[in-house]
Amino acid sequence: MRNPAQGPVVGMAGGGQLARMTQQAAIGLGVNLRVLAGSPDDSAAKVCADVRIGDDRSLDDLSAFAKGCDVVTFDHEHVPGGHIEAVEAAGTPCRPGAAALLHAQDKLVMRDRLSALGAPCPRYAEVGGDDPLAIIEGFGRETGWPVVLKATRGGYDGKGVWVLDGPDEGLVRELLAQGLSLMVEEHVPFRRELAALVARSPHGQGAAYPIVETVQENGICVEVLAPAPGLDEEIAAEAQRLALEIAERLGVTGLLAVELFEGDRGLLVNELAMRPHNSGHWTIEGSRTSQFEQHLRAVLDLPLGETRPTAPYVVMANVLGGDDPDVHSRYLHVMAHDPGIKVNLYGKEVRPGRKIGHVTALGDDLADVRERARHAADYLRWGPGGPRKETTLKGDA
Amino acid sequence: MRNPAQGPVVGMAGGGQLARMTQQAAIGLGVNLRVLAGSPDDSAAKVCADVRIGDDRSLDDLSAFAKGCDVVTFDHEHVPGGHIEAVEAAGTPCRPGAAALLHAQDKLVMRDRLSALGAPCPRYAEVGGDDPLAIIEGFGRETGWPVVLKATRGGYDGKGVWVLDGPDEGLVRELLAQGLSLMVEEHVPFRRELAALVARSPHGQGAAYPIVETVQENGICVEVLAPAPGLDEEIAAEAQRLALEIAERLGVTGLLAVELFEGDRGLLVNELAMRPHNSGHWTIEGSRTSQFEQHLRAVLDLPLGETRPTAPYVVMANVLGGDDPDVHSRYLHVMAHDPGIKVNLYGKEVRPGRKIGHVTALGDDLADVRERARHAADYLRWGPGGPRKETTLKGDA
Repeated sequence: MRNPAQGPVVGMAGGGQLARMTQQAAIGLGVNLRVLAGSPDDSAAKVCADVRIGDDRSLDDLSAFAKGCDVVTFDHEHVPGGHIEAVEAAGTPCRPGAAALLHAQDKLVMRDRLSALGAPCPRYAEVGGDDPLAIIEGFGRETGWPVVLKATRGGYDGKGVWVLDGPDEGLVRELLAQGLSLMVEEHVPFRRELAALVARSPHGQGAAYPIVETVQENGICVEVLAPAPGLDEEIAAEAQRLALEIAERLGVTGLLAVELFEGDRGLLVNELAMRPHNSGHWTIEGSRTSQFEQHLRAVLDLPLGETRPTAPYVVMANVLGGDDPDVHSRYLHVMAHDPGIKVNLYGKEVRPGRKIGHVTALGDDLADVRERARHAADYLRWGPGGPRKETTLKGDA
Repeated sequence: MRNPAQGPVVGMAGGGQLARMTQQAAIGLGVNLRVLAGSPDDSAAKVCADVRIGDDRSLDDLSAFAKGCDVVTFDHEHVPGGHIEAVEAAGTPCRPGAAALLHAQDKLVMRDRLSALGAPCPRYAEVGGDDPLAIIEGFGRETGWPVVLKATRGGYDGKGVWVLDGPDEGLVRELLAQGLSLMVEEHVPFRRELAALVARSPHGQGAAYPIVETVQENGICVEVLAPAPGLDEEIAAEAQRLALEIAERLGVTGLLAVELFEGDRGLLVNELAMRPHNSGHWTIEGSRTSQFEQHLRAVLDLPLGETRPTAPYVVMANVLGGDDPDVHSRYLHVMAHDPGIKVNLYGKEVRPGRKIGHVTALGDDLADVRERARHAADYLRWGPGGPRKETTLKGDA
């Protein structure tokens, strides 16, 4: 540490809600969180003392930001690997490092690597070469339609993903003309989606959270059930082992979230993320160590914290923006209705469909806990009138 | 609220660890915490985005600070009541208000009021008039020696309190010459000290936390056991009722901590505080709603949160500074030793005996939980060598 008496400085590139919630944990640990935000209005910039305004995709901004940090980490996957290597070469460790993070940045690299490691994945193919349409057509014939077309980079919350019922020449040509790299995957039939969240520290310690079920609507995670109800213990243990092994083999430092499909073929890996993850927000109240504290402990190479849950069931529901920006007046009702509900708002401008916060409920009875979380999230979005049809469900980050 | 879309602005006068921990709760609630700190190095100033540097005992600084706040509250008791009234007259509500806060600022006013309300207090007398020594002497004859001499204002952590075995003319004359107002109280024999923490909102809602036991050394709280072990249920309920009634009768808005003696005469009120209190730090991990969130909810007149504990036993131990400022290297050991221990550091310069943080342990077995908290606090202070005799135990805030 550069100044032991003052505590470590952790730089987080990106000023979104993940950095914001990391600040809550940093305060407790006596860690100085420095945030590189695009604007002073960013979610995390509103709650941190040490905010640098800049572009985390600019090497100059990133390098200036990293100076004086004990370690640099990330609120998202969009910092170019070359920049990360340059910052490391200049003397500031980045966690995760560029080589690991690449697997959360490029879906094709991830699939190739996980397949080589023997991790269970959907079948896939790169869409490239002279006749990309022929690849999609051949892949569809082999696996059956529909197939899933993905941009290898830059997608999130359902963006960059298209379900094709047949080779859609117009769409594919348009995407390639935009310069996107594409891949195609089989459309996996699954019963539900699970997520495995683990942490790994540079000295090699690992810690796994209970496996959760994630519920998606229109490509956006709307609900997380912890632990995944009715999940076979063997499968849960297998999912934890799989995530810990991926973290180790890829050299991840910090958190790793592995999104999984559960279906007739067992577990299949969907996506990876190497940062605090929406599927882990429940840990703020629901685990002895929140994912945000765990990420800080991991990137600082501190011993990891206990992941034991604080209640038999914990349900997190994302709060999406509705038509009326005055979410704070609505949370009064939510708190009065349910004194045990935990409201977490991100300080973001309310736009229809945008993730602006989440709520967490805890208790002994899953149906009850789920209903409480659902009610609170719906009320914060819509107020007493309930959903209005004209509001789009499309989300953003 | 002045700008509903952006969330309320709560101004907290004072930049100590109570404001720092309030920031953790404010982030979750989407509340913008503005802090009036004496220096950018203050505990809370290091972790808040909206910091105003100034003197909270100056009306000009306080008034400028209050502008644009939806409500002003306090991290300590030292803001003069007249200033608070002036800020309220200028249009910003202060919670607690001056009339209520006076009872946490002036021990004689508090004793007179509580006695009038019939709340159980130690016997006491004002030390004033022409012959203050005669008052002390008479009081000692009546109640028996020793007696407790107190400055009516400004004391904390054992400061401003003297135990007299007889009329100590030299000391009393010196204190009076310093301009201190004095009172004398009987030296109450007690088995242990308890604390009752409640919240009250402007619309009159009240919420009580479980009664805790506080363990003091040299006038400083070193340990809090929640709930108070072996406490008779009736007495616990009586303590909660007493605190709720005091909050109501005094018109407290926000938190009220009532420090109590438990002894042969039942419960006696020792001191009052109207802010988050050291005896409530255990609630961060140990209760569904932390005292910091509860205080914000109360001063914003939001419905209060559930106070249910998250484990059968929760023990908080204060971390005092030792000789070596590098507490961060020592917490590595503490975390490795006990993955479930929660470390909370205040970002304060380490000085011997100064409160620089606290640790919290939770579990089913009180002796075990207490040992874990004690070990962590001792290790953070002393390291592997254990206490060194030459270090003073004298504390400060």
